[in-house]
Amino acid sequence: MKHAVVLLSGGMDSAVTLALARAEGFLCHALSVAYGQRHISELQAAARIAAMLGAVEHKIVDVDLRGIGGSALTADIEVPQHDRVHPVDEIPITYVPARNTIMLSIALGWAEVLGADDIWCGVNAVDYSGYPDCRPAFIAAFEQLANVATKAGVQGHTLRVHAPLMRMSKADIVREGLALGVDFSATVSCYRADSEGRACGECDACALRAHGFAEVGIADPTRYR
Amino acid sequence: MKHAVVLLSGGMDSAVTLALARAEGFLCHALSVAYGQRHISELQAAARIAAMLGAVEHKIVDVDLRGIGGSALTADIEVPQHDRVHPVDEIPITYVPARNTIMLSIALGWAEVLGADDIWCGVNAVDYSGYPDCRPAFIAAFEQLANVATKAGVQGHTLRVHAPLMRMSKADIVREGLALGVDFSATVSCYRADSEGRACGECDACALRAHGFAEVGIADPTRYR
Repeated sequence: MKHAVVLLSGGMDSAVTLALARAEGFLCHALSVAYGQRHISELQAAARIAAMLGAVEHKIVDVDLRGIGGSALTADIEVPQHDRVHPVDEIPITYVPARNTIMLSIALGWAEVLGADDIWCGVNAVDYSGYPDCRPAFIAAFEQLANVATKAGVQGHTLRVHAPLMRMSKADIVREGLALGVDFSATVSCYRADSEGRACGECDACALRAHGFAEVGIADPTRYR
Repeated sequence: MKHAVVLLSGGMDSAVTLALARAEGFLCHALSVAYGQRHISELQAAARIAAMLGAVEHKIVDVDLRGIGGSALTADIEVPQHDRVHPVDEIPITYVPARNTIMLSIALGWAEVLGADDIWCGVNAVDYSGYPDCRPAFIAAFEQLANVATKAGVQGHTLRVHAPLMRMSKADIVREGLALGVDFSATVSCYRADSEGRACGECDACALRAHGFAEVGIADPTRYR
């Protein structure tokens, strides 16, 4: 069986990604990156999801991005309400500079230690079109980098970065997760979740999630505070 | 004046790189990454060097790579003597998986926060030919990634990754540093430096450094224990 590193945030997208990797037969090593995010309950959710979905192991690596700031998720900037007025082509303040690059880099390091050729992540271009590091071109560029950055490039095997949710809507992701038996009640999406994992119901992440469940026509098990 | 992020390890290569970036007129934001390396005195050296060479500021970002292991610099594996017998094409055990990818990713995040289009690093292909992430192809791939991973790619300006030491020998680096007024006594190269920054004189890093100074014909100010 083949080993894979799966980035797991504790949100619903990465949970569905883990379920997909398992369904394709990978032995999954789940990785969460604690980057100083406000919503620490996401990491607790990640540990539960890793166990529920049959990951071989779960690691949390700390990288403290609060020092460089620049985002509402890591710095002392307020997470905005979903219904604020803002230009459509603006990059949201919840964007964390280079976050996906940093998380994939750490996943790459662990994959190399494990001898795994596959990295899975829940990056999605549909709902996060304002985030530069959520586009297909980003994943393609990272995969190219991965193959020159590591022993793989020297030893002649090929690393692959899987982003199976890239072109799926939130509703599609809900349907896929239900088909794979993902328990969405274990996932935390909210940018401002409290220490119990209860959601605010007002931020972009809450709005996107609620919209996805509504479109599918089933109840969202999110607990609100 | 233009802003740049400069990766600064505390060793001699990144010190010379900072001096080169300053000589080209950049306002330099020095970045050290504490990745769980054994030689913590390198980070203390980095703080001194940043101040001596006129960096605008110096930040240390923690990312704990001990969890993923896989290297003599982060895991419980002995740093080998320089004179051990090993195949020439073997990747050294002191190689830290994806280290340069991770450090450049963090530099990229900070550059984006600062609005800096330039990142400098002391990567060198001559002395570290066994490290996949010290090759020109790696820097080129990272630069390409940087431009799709960030707002730069969306907003139409171009990020550059400078690796001015890439093709220089250790002796060339010593000469360049002397010409730029770098005080090499402040730098720590040893993989096994003690808490006072004193070198072992026996590891690969010590051997490379001593060889470079010997070739130039000047005394190496390294303090040995």
